[in-house]
Amino acid sequence: MTAAEAINAHRRPDVRFEVIGLDADDTLWHSEDSFHAVEARFVELIAPFAPDGVDVGAALRATETAQLPISGYGVKAFTLSMVRAALTVTEWQVPQPVIGQLLDAGTDMLTEPVRLLPYVPEVLADLSRDHRLILITKGDLVHQMRKVTTSGLAHHFHHVEVVLEKDVDTYARILATLDVPAERFCMVGNSVRSDILPVLALGAHAVHIPYPLLWEHEHADHDEQLDELGSISELPARLRAAEGS
Amino acid sequence: MTAAEAINAHRRPDVRFEVIGLDADDTLWHSEDSFHAVEARFVELIAPFAPDGVDVGAALRATETAQLPISGYGVKAFTLSMVRAALTVTEWQVPQPVIGQLLDAGTDMLTEPVRLLPYVPEVLADLSRDHRLILITKGDLVHQMRKVTTSGLAHHFHHVEVVLEKDVDTYARILATLDVPAERFCMVGNSVRSDILPVLALGAHAVHIPYPLLWEHEHADHDEQLDELGSISELPARLRAAEGS
Repeated sequence: MTAAEAINAHRRPDVRFEVIGLDADDTLWHSEDSFHAVEARFVELIAPFAPDGVDVGAALRATETAQLPISGYGVKAFTLSMVRAALTVTEWQVPQPVIGQLLDAGTDMLTEPVRLLPYVPEVLADLSRDHRLILITKGDLVHQMRKVTTSGLAHHFHHVEVVLEKDVDTYARILATLDVPAERFCMVGNSVRSDILPVLALGAHAVHIPYPLLWEHEHADHDEQLDELGSISELPARLRAAEGS
Repeated sequence: MTAAEAINAHRRPDVRFEVIGLDADDTLWHSEDSFHAVEARFVELIAPFAPDGVDVGAALRATETAQLPISGYGVKAFTLSMVRAALTVTEWQVPQPVIGQLLDAGTDMLTEPVRLLPYVPEVLADLSRDHRLILITKGDLVHQMRKVTTSGLAHHFHHVEVVLEKDVDTYARILATLDVPAERFCMVGNSVRSDILPVLALGAHAVHIPYPLLWEHEHADHDEQLDELGSISELPARLRAAEGS
C-alpha cells in the first residue's frame, strides 16, 4: 500500500471530523514554562550589569517582539534576542562569559527532553484509531521536529506542519493540501489567537484546552463562545459527542 | 473553485512530470555567496582578538557543523554559531561591540533583498503553464518564506515545503502528501546531495544545475550519470525533451 493509499484507506465517512489538527507546544507538551524560566535566568544574569532603573525583562520582551517579523518564533530567535538585549541594556558592559551562558541556555532549551502533558499518549492512541491526526505548530523547524520524533508520538501523525503563522490563510492552505472540507476538520490547542479563532473563521470546529501560562503575544480578545476543556483527557469523549456517535 | 479543485484541474495526463520540485537557495536566487562574504567578515572581525595560529574560519565552520543536529540550517543557526565561535576562539576576549556586529551581520542576511538568478522569472512562468510547481527548501522557515514572498514568484508555486533534511524519506513524504507517483515527479536543484541523489533513489527524475559555490556540507561523492544544465534557462526545453513532446 502506498502512503497515498494509506491516507485514502483512512477516510471514514462515518466520523464527522476526518482530520484532527493538534497544536504541539503547551497542548501536547510543556513549552512556555521553559521560556519563563530562562527569561527569569536572563534577568538574574543581566540585571547586575544594567544601570539602575532599567527593566531588563521588559527590554528582552520588547526585543523579541521587534525581531519577530525578521526572526520568527522559536528558541533560536529567542536566544538571539537575549544576546542582543543583553548588549543593549548593559551598554555593551555584559561580560563575555555571560553571553556564553545565554547561548548555553538556548542550547539547553533546544535539547531538553520533551515533557509530555498528562494523558497525551493515551488520547492520541485513542483518536488515531478513527481519525487522521496532523500536528500543526509554529516555531523552529528543527526544534519542533526533534520534539515530535523524540516524543515517541510521531507514528500517530499522518502529517506534521511547522508553519510561520497560524492564521486563516495557513489553515485554508493546509485543508486544501489535505483535500479536507472545513466542516470535517477540528483543531485542538491552547492558544485562542492561533488555534481557535482562525479555525472558526473558516467554518471548522476548534477545541480550546488552556495551559496555565500564555505568552502575551498569543493573547486575543474575542466574544466567541468557545468549546473549552480542562484537560486533553476529556477530548475523545467531547469529539465523539460532537460527532453524535 | 476550491484550492483542491484548482490542483485537480491542473492535473495534465499529457505531461510526463505532473509536479516539478524546485530548490530555492542557489537555484532560484543567490545564497551561498552571502554566507561566504559574512564568513570572510567574521574572520576579519575576530582574527585580531584570537591567539596567533588559530584558524578562525575553520573554527566557525566546525562550530556550524557541530551545531547542525541541534540548530539545523539557516541564518539564525549560522549567527548563533558565529557568536559561539567568536567567544571560544578569542578565549572570551572578543569585545562586546564586535558581538553586536556579528548579530547585525545575521540580521542583514535575513533582511537583504532577494537576488534572483538570471532567467528565473521567465522559466517559472513558462513551466507553471503546464506543470504544478512546488518549492522544496531547507533552512530557516521565516527567512525562506520571506524570500519566497518578496521574490514576487510565490504565485507560481502550488505549495512551498521548508524541510529539515532533503533525504529519501522527506521526498517520499512530499510525494505521498501530493499524491503524485515518483515517475511523474522531477526535482531541480544545485545540490547533488540534497536535490538529486535522494530523488533518483525514489525513481523520480532530477535535473542538476550547479551553482559556482557549494557549501562543503552539501558535497557528495557519487557515480551517477546526472542530467545536468549550465543554466535554468535551458530547463523548459530539457523537460519537454524528456517528456517527448
